[in-house]
Amino acid sequence: MINAVGREIPEKIGSYVVKPYAGPMETIEADAPVVSKRKPSKRAVGENKLLPDLKAAILATGLKDGMTISFHHSFREGDKIIGQVLTVIRELGIKGLRFAPSAVVNIKNPSIVSFVKDGTINRIQASGIRGELGDAVVNGEVELAEPVILRPHGSRPHAIETGDLTIDVAFIGASAADDFGNCTGQIGPNACGALGYSFIDATSADKVVVITDNLVPYPCVPMSISQMYVDYVVKVDEIGDPAKIGAGATRMTKNPRDLLIAQRCADIMAASRLFKDGYSFQTGAGAIPVACTNFLADYTEQAGIQSSFTLGGMTGAIVDMHNRGLLRTMLCSQSFDAVAARAIAEDPNVLEIDNSMYANMFNKSCVLDKLNFGILGALEVDVDFNINILTGSSGEMMGGIGGGPDVADGADISIVTLPIVRGRIPSVVDKVFTCCTPGSSVAVVVTEAGIALNPKHRSYQMLKEDLDAAGIKTVTIESLRDLAYSMTGVPKPIETTDKITCIVEYRDGTVIDVIRQIKRD
Amino acid sequence: MINAVGREIPEKIGSYVVKPYAGPMETIEADAPVVSKRKPSKRAVGENKLLPDLKAAILATGLKDGMTISFHHSFREGDKIIGQVLTVIRELGIKGLRFAPSAVVNIKNPSIVSFVKDGTINRIQASGIRGELGDAVVNGEVELAEPVILRPHGSRPHAIETGDLTIDVAFIGASAADDFGNCTGQIGPNACGALGYSFIDATSADKVVVITDNLVPYPCVPMSISQMYVDYVVKVDEIGDPAKIGAGATRMTKNPRDLLIAQRCADIMAASRLFKDGYSFQTGAGAIPVACTNFLADYTEQAGIQSSFTLGGMTGAIVDMHNRGLLRTMLCSQSFDAVAARAIAEDPNVLEIDNSMYANMFNKSCVLDKLNFGILGALEVDVDFNINILTGSSGEMMGGIGGGPDVADGADISIVTLPIVRGRIPSVVDKVFTCCTPGSSVAVVVTEAGIALNPKHRSYQMLKEDLDAAGIKTVTIESLRDLAYSMTGVPKPIETTDKITCIVEYRDGTVIDVIRQIKRD
Repeated sequence: MINAVGREIPEKIGSYVVKPYAGPMETIEADAPVVSKRKPSKRAVGENKLLPDLKAAILATGLKDGMTISFHHSFREGDKIIGQVLTVIRELGIKGLRFAPSAVVNIKNPSIVSFVKDGTINRIQASGIRGELGDAVVNGEVELAEPVILRPHGSRPHAIETGDLTIDVAFIGASAADDFGNCTGQIGPNACGALGYSFIDATSADKVVVITDNLVPYPCVPMSISQMYVDYVVKVDEIGDPAKIGAGATRMTKNPRDLLIAQRCADIMAASRLFKDGYSFQTGAGAIPVACTNFLADYTEQAGIQSSFTLGGMTGAIVDMHNRGLLRTMLCSQSFDAVAARAIAEDPNVLEIDNSMYANMFNKSCVLDKLNFGILGALEVDVDFNINILTGSSGEMMGGIGGGPDVADGADISIVTLPIVRGRIPSVVDKVFTCCTPGSSVAVVVTEAGIALNPKHRSYQMLKEDLDAAGIKTVTIESLRDLAYSMTGVPKPIETTDKITCIVEYRDGTVIDVIRQIKRD
Repeated sequence: MINAVGREIPEKIGSYVVKPYAGPMETIEADAPVVSKRKPSKRAVGENKLLPDLKAAILATGLKDGMTISFHHSFREGDKIIGQVLTVIRELGIKGLRFAPSAVVNIKNPSIVSFVKDGTINRIQASGIRGELGDAVVNGEVELAEPVILRPHGSRPHAIETGDLTIDVAFIGASAADDFGNCTGQIGPNACGALGYSFIDATSADKVVVITDNLVPYPCVPMSISQMYVDYVVKVDEIGDPAKIGAGATRMTKNPRDLLIAQRCADIMAASRLFKDGYSFQTGAGAIPVACTNFLADYTEQAGIQSSFTLGGMTGAIVDMHNRGLLRTMLCSQSFDAVAARAIAEDPNVLEIDNSMYANMFNKSCVLDKLNFGILGALEVDVDFNINILTGSSGEMMGGIGGGPDVADGADISIVTLPIVRGRIPSVVDKVFTCCTPGSSVAVVVTEAGIALNPKHRSYQMLKEDLDAAGIKTVTIESLRDLAYSMTGVPKPIETTDKITCIVEYRDGTVIDVIRQIKRD
């Protein structure tokens, strides 16, 4: 069958029954209440949660072949939790696990691939599997029992609450914890900031293990996750590499192309009628978002207004804007650098929030429903404004879905930023290889070569008037594609086999695309 | 049948199947995961949660005959939410509701009794029904479809998570809220402090209505309850009477009897080997607890140590101790006065916590499991150290169960404070009329006439040694009873009919006692 973004998808993929993406929804009424695997359980008096090592904790959880384990990805490529835990699981001879972190980051020594190859892991669900693991999957170098399921951030808590993804054991890395499991990522030598991705794991998993390298006196303050959800606590030597935990997102780029894109992005926001006292925005991490935040702060100061909130992943640039009095509150589900991590602990207007509160469309409302401006990165955009944030020009796994589809759908004005070419690869194309975000939810594409408005977006008329009034010129998306192709040539299609390696879910749980196995020479 | 505290209880009470109290437990393994009535649901774009009035909100929830509604009691006798909501429900002609607040406070104009009499409410579950409603129940002046179920604070979230108590519509009063339902009790003209009792209602009810008189710009900070759990928001003129919201708990008593009891209580704590750097305590509200907190603070200062945490309901006296540097953290499930309410918003070491985290023994651990010293009030104690905190000398409903049974069981050393007589009524008796807390969980009884240690308590040996070493004299509980009886005479038994009006549950969900209808002349 063909879904609403024109992708051909089988009705069943193994045992997975496909609900095809059917276009933007209005209201879904669910009959079944949310589910959890957490059980009421009383501890014996004096029973100790603090166990001597990971092996003792894993044995205490009763982890068995075929179960599901989870992790957060807030330590990013500095993560040392996942490798340590999987190594002990391997030593214990436990096989066939479903690996369901919030995202897979490209860790090495040991790599995740080795655990797939030896059968410790045989299924994967995450928002992304960037790097070695992703490439091994799409190239067919590893054999999984079912295709990888990739979900946006907002969709993971929904999948857990509907029971589509049940977690037997959640391993939660924390940069500070006490012996009863109260913990946080905000303080300590390896602080990673908000633990927003882990809240749903803490409340919904059968067993929860907190892993820290910084055991603090009871009670741990700040208290991001409560002891009432934690079964065991383990102290290890090191939970992460601080140099890699911070994504280095605070630096201001000097790349003129990125600065130009960031400036245009801020110009568009400032030109909008929604840019008024109390406006809200999400920029995210990376060179363009950080530069854009700085430009937006200046516009806000010049206008003599204040933003009411920003949302999602935080950077030092956003903290600066807050400290300048230009932004009242920061709702942080993730922290991209040390400055942003620390701010939550120090400032009552910087709040750590549940990732589900941030982005889950099946909540009684997520904060995205209130967002005016959302800035999104992309690997590719096509002439239907569909976005690819997963795969590169030869099908390699370059990114994760992240919160992009959620933000695009939730924000009044969603702005995709990308250069029209990267090296000899066009970024604006006829048809994205992998569709992660439907074009109907994308309002604007900003490139160094021009700004394209999506005439089918619900904000088009308003935005067109506002940009015209501000003298901001726009071009068609087709002209950007033509320009890109004129520089690179028309790209050759990526050849695939029929075998589906990844299922790409949209934020509503439907299938927006699949990734078939890449034919390699 | 006879339960473990010697109470005669039928095997069934109507449709209620009695699990008799069987003594202190070690570990309960539960098979079934926690349940919730909350449903995944998506809001339509632009759908407004803010409704014009209570009638619109109640209609929007779909409230129907026979459903269950809930409220918190954090506005205490200043509450104006319950009366307003029930009045609208009455006007809508909805009947036969189960009324399940965290506790019933003695509100007037309108009184709760009137809603029982006209059939709006026909069942009640709470931690207490003090005042007019309670008396009407135990005197048989109102007809309910089933006996009232009274539960300790820690037991209510457990009953909700097991599905014994399912809530259709939770009405949550908040002293500040935004139009998407983020809300708090910490700020605003009618601040009540921690909303710890409402967290379980927010996450587990089918529909949640936030009611405020102080609508603030989005997002509301502090954010005690997240919009992700809130269906509707209503602004009313007034949620409470600030003069009655604060329980007046901050004043230091001048009553010499109360000061003596408070001083003895602090003497016992300071004499214990558990009184060392990092010790923890819970005192609570009222004249004796406030005085005891002040004495304890002085002892702490003299010893050159710091308490690691205090827990539960907070007063200005505790904030003072924290501000003097003698107490590191305050874990607040409830705030008894304005000073304590404000402290949460202003100080990162003063934390608002879920009542379930505080006291629910079926959590992976509640904070009570870590408590060294717990101070408890009581109406009566008997020679088996059983505690009555519900009924007065003629069976009238004078108190609520509150967190007493939880604290007694959780604290290493639980100290009950009471005068041996009140007026012409003895407080130390042969057998309490209503047993709320089993004597096995009570370590010490402190009166103005002497201190009695419970030889059957697990801390007896340690405590006896410590008090002896400090030269603190103790007496037998029987001698306190004899002294009381010598002043008042032996009380006449309260005569009852066979009809059970209230079922008194213990913190583990078993039945510790029942209250039969009082025979009145």
